[in-house]
Amino acid sequence: MKKQLLLAAALPLLSLSISAAAPAQRVAGQAERLREAALEDDVAWDIVEGLTTEVGPRLAGTEAEARAREWGVRKLKSLGFSNVHIETYDMPVWVRGEERAEIVSPFPQKLAVTALGNSAATPAAGLSAEVVGFASLAELEAAPDSAVRGKIVFVTHAMSPTQDGSQYGYFGAVRRTGPSVASRKGAAAIVIRSIGTDHHRNPHTGVQMWAQGVQPIPAGALSVPDAEQLERMLKRGKPITMRLTLTPRNIGVQQGGNVVAEVRGTDPDAGIILIGGHLDSWDLGTGAIDNAAGVAITAAAAKRIMDAGRPRRTIRVVWFGAEEVGGNGSDAYRTAHAKEKIVFVSESDFGADRVWRMDPGFAPANAALSDRVAAVLAPLGISRSTQPASGGADLGDWVRAGVAGVDLQQDGTRYFDYHHTPDDTLDKIDPEQLRQNVAAWTAMLSVVADAREEIARTPAR
Amino acid sequence: MKKQLLLAAALPLLSLSISAAAPAQRVAGQAERLREAALEDDVAWDIVEGLTTEVGPRLAGTEAEARAREWGVRKLKSLGFSNVHIETYDMPVWVRGEERAEIVSPFPQKLAVTALGNSAATPAAGLSAEVVGFASLAELEAAPDSAVRGKIVFVTHAMSPTQDGSQYGYFGAVRRTGPSVASRKGAAAIVIRSIGTDHHRNPHTGVQMWAQGVQPIPAGALSVPDAEQLERMLKRGKPITMRLTLTPRNIGVQQGGNVVAEVRGTDPDAGIILIGGHLDSWDLGTGAIDNAAGVAITAAAAKRIMDAGRPRRTIRVVWFGAEEVGGNGSDAYRTAHAKEKIVFVSESDFGADRVWRMDPGFAPANAALSDRVAAVLAPLGISRSTQPASGGADLGDWVRAGVAGVDLQQDGTRYFDYHHTPDDTLDKIDPEQLRQNVAAWTAMLSVVADAREEIARTPAR
Repeated sequence: MKKQLLLAAALPLLSLSISAAAPAQRVAGQAERLREAALEDDVAWDIVEGLTTEVGPRLAGTEAEARAREWGVRKLKSLGFSNVHIETYDMPVWVRGEERAEIVSPFPQKLAVTALGNSAATPAAGLSAEVVGFASLAELEAAPDSAVRGKIVFVTHAMSPTQDGSQYGYFGAVRRTGPSVASRKGAAAIVIRSIGTDHHRNPHTGVQMWAQGVQPIPAGALSVPDAEQLERMLKRGKPITMRLTLTPRNIGVQQGGNVVAEVRGTDPDAGIILIGGHLDSWDLGTGAIDNAAGVAITAAAAKRIMDAGRPRRTIRVVWFGAEEVGGNGSDAYRTAHAKEKIVFVSESDFGADRVWRMDPGFAPANAALSDRVAAVLAPLGISRSTQPASGGADLGDWVRAGVAGVDLQQDGTRYFDYHHTPDDTLDKIDPEQLRQNVAAWTAMLSVVADAREEIARTPAR
Repeated sequence: MKKQLLLAAALPLLSLSISAAAPAQRVAGQAERLREAALEDDVAWDIVEGLTTEVGPRLAGTEAEARAREWGVRKLKSLGFSNVHIETYDMPVWVRGEERAEIVSPFPQKLAVTALGNSAATPAAGLSAEVVGFASLAELEAAPDSAVRGKIVFVTHAMSPTQDGSQYGYFGAVRRTGPSVASRKGAAAIVIRSIGTDHHRNPHTGVQMWAQGVQPIPAGALSVPDAEQLERMLKRGKPITMRLTLTPRNIGVQQGGNVVAEVRGTDPDAGIILIGGHLDSWDLGTGAIDNAAGVAITAAAAKRIMDAGRPRRTIRVVWFGAEEVGGNGSDAYRTAHAKEKIVFVSESDFGADRVWRMDPGFAPANAALSDRVAAVLAPLGISRSTQPASGGADLGDWVRAGVAGVDLQQDGTRYFDYHHTPDDTLDKIDPEQLRQNVAAWTAMLSVVADAREEIARTPAR
């Protein structure tokens, strides 16, 4: 009922339209109204505030992540979603232990360190060795084994803040690959300069996977000020001895899960829209920007569509588990739902700062649909790029397999100040920018969910 | 020789002067030259970089502070100062232990905490109790004992950044007084919102002294994001149980010391100028802004005066010990040197951001000297205020006893983002602003050290 009233009210606007089919325009009129209303949204903040306060950190596969799922089910049911449930899977789980680093000589002092995901443990009393420093991953790769063997490798880098966050991919290789390279060369351990852009003594954790056949070694990240401190020490040219204590452990196979909720569509043949973010977080912070924000934005937008009346297509919101540690949740989800008619995917997983760019992922046949999405987003300061949608960490497999999608790119300028640190907490979220996200998502979902045309598959990449 | 040449070169400027005696003006001409040259200073950075890197944290009365003294003696001798030596004293020493806080129920998660100075210890396994929250120190003071007894008291506050840092005095009472108030009411422990203006998960430590007859209890500070998290939990109205583990201990009486260096003056009867900062730091960071900057600025300025030729008055630079834990170093210094003819004091202990205000502390008879100091500082963007100089934590006793002085007030807008946290590290110092400090100090010292008039005592306050 509500939806019909809104459509009727929007009719006078339609006479101004100069392109495309009337039904599509009628839907676009609604999208604009929903977009403006979403700029007053409080649901996303309510979700972010509640999840980060009442659950807090929620490392994949732990009891905390299970509490987050129960919290999510209660919240999504209370918001009125249909078919709210948990889909479980099993996964190996790694948990953090003690973590300490100190320079033993010649400049004795403590350094702030955290273990990288899947790090091996040092002895409980720590491991002492000389530090050998490298200015880049390439420099480490080029080093003879003899320069590294038995030592604690330190690798720095020059990551800078960027709006699109693209330096994470490049410099992040220090974290993703550095530990395996160091182990292959016989290093006793590795510490990297945190993959981050801040200057606070909160190291950035993050997953790394041991390459095939590589012996796990202790692998940690120093905070950026501590990495710079170590660089200054190394420049003085004296041998530097570090004691590193990291006692993480693998606690075997545990249960994880994805939380699912739906806004039921009117046309089962039109295919399903799959959106979401990830519910798990690293254990150091409360996972506000990574990624309570994403689950909140997508759920809040879907609720706004739901409250405006049933859309043509079912919108399915999935709060994935275990994104941080390798994507066990999205892998399990894709395996279980490969046969379903998923026609469009979109993920939110880059904080809560404003959306500034739309990366489209439509087939040529859906050019008009892409245009309508771009048009409804433009008043929010969002422009369509020529960069194709990636689908992100949890939905990228669908995009690569040929499912249409859109990436609503968020401003990442300060994202890597907080990413994977204890500082990923609620106070880093700007409620106004969060609302702009909800508005962008609501507008996009309104256009796509109600589109009269079929949403075509794209060439698989 | 060098000085005479500079004075000769400055002579053409003197014909422009319209006030005061010619000798004083001649000195002021030199001050302007030294001020401009000091804007290129590298000595202060060298000291800050070296002390924070090669020594790092240097808690009062510990082996680390002793290393800092040895480092200081080497550095000051290498800079060419006279009479470089250490003056020791004995003091009781408190050292940090383990520190952990966690919400046990109903929202289990860890919080970032640090012990306040002189905190008692919890049992090694921690202390669990219900949290009772207060919006201010006044609210805690007004609470009946029955509301507090056996509980963990939490006190928050609303400190904001200010240029003059004056909110530290007001809101800092939560730290200085809160623990004693809580103990008197029978609290099991107290945690306060850090006395700070940042939003990072690095709690601010700081000293607190137990009031007469009060039983020490465990006393800690939560980081600002954690304090806000606890406030959100308390607002939900359910009983909150916290487990707090703080295991600091008193290690008895140890030796501390002040490091002293001099620029010898030509006129022993003209009195001594006493300047400096404090060499000790809290143990969490490397004490860059608090107070490697202050020892560096004062020594760099004194060296610039020295290198320009002997001043009329001896300039004595003291790097005080144990400022953070109660001023044992300055107390010992004042006791030992009470009989000396100290005619002027000035301290630098508020970071490394630019000097913006001169607070004068001259007798009426020295109005012209105060004018000349103000005039030489004005081109650096510094104006004289009507606020009398305080002398600061280490030299305030001299000012209160009637010794003339000047406070060169630094911009404190971001000082309490880092103060007493792990984040007090070198990267927080802006080299350009550090140089402006050296220029201001050099100019002031030049005017005061060479002033022809006697420097009179002020009315004791």
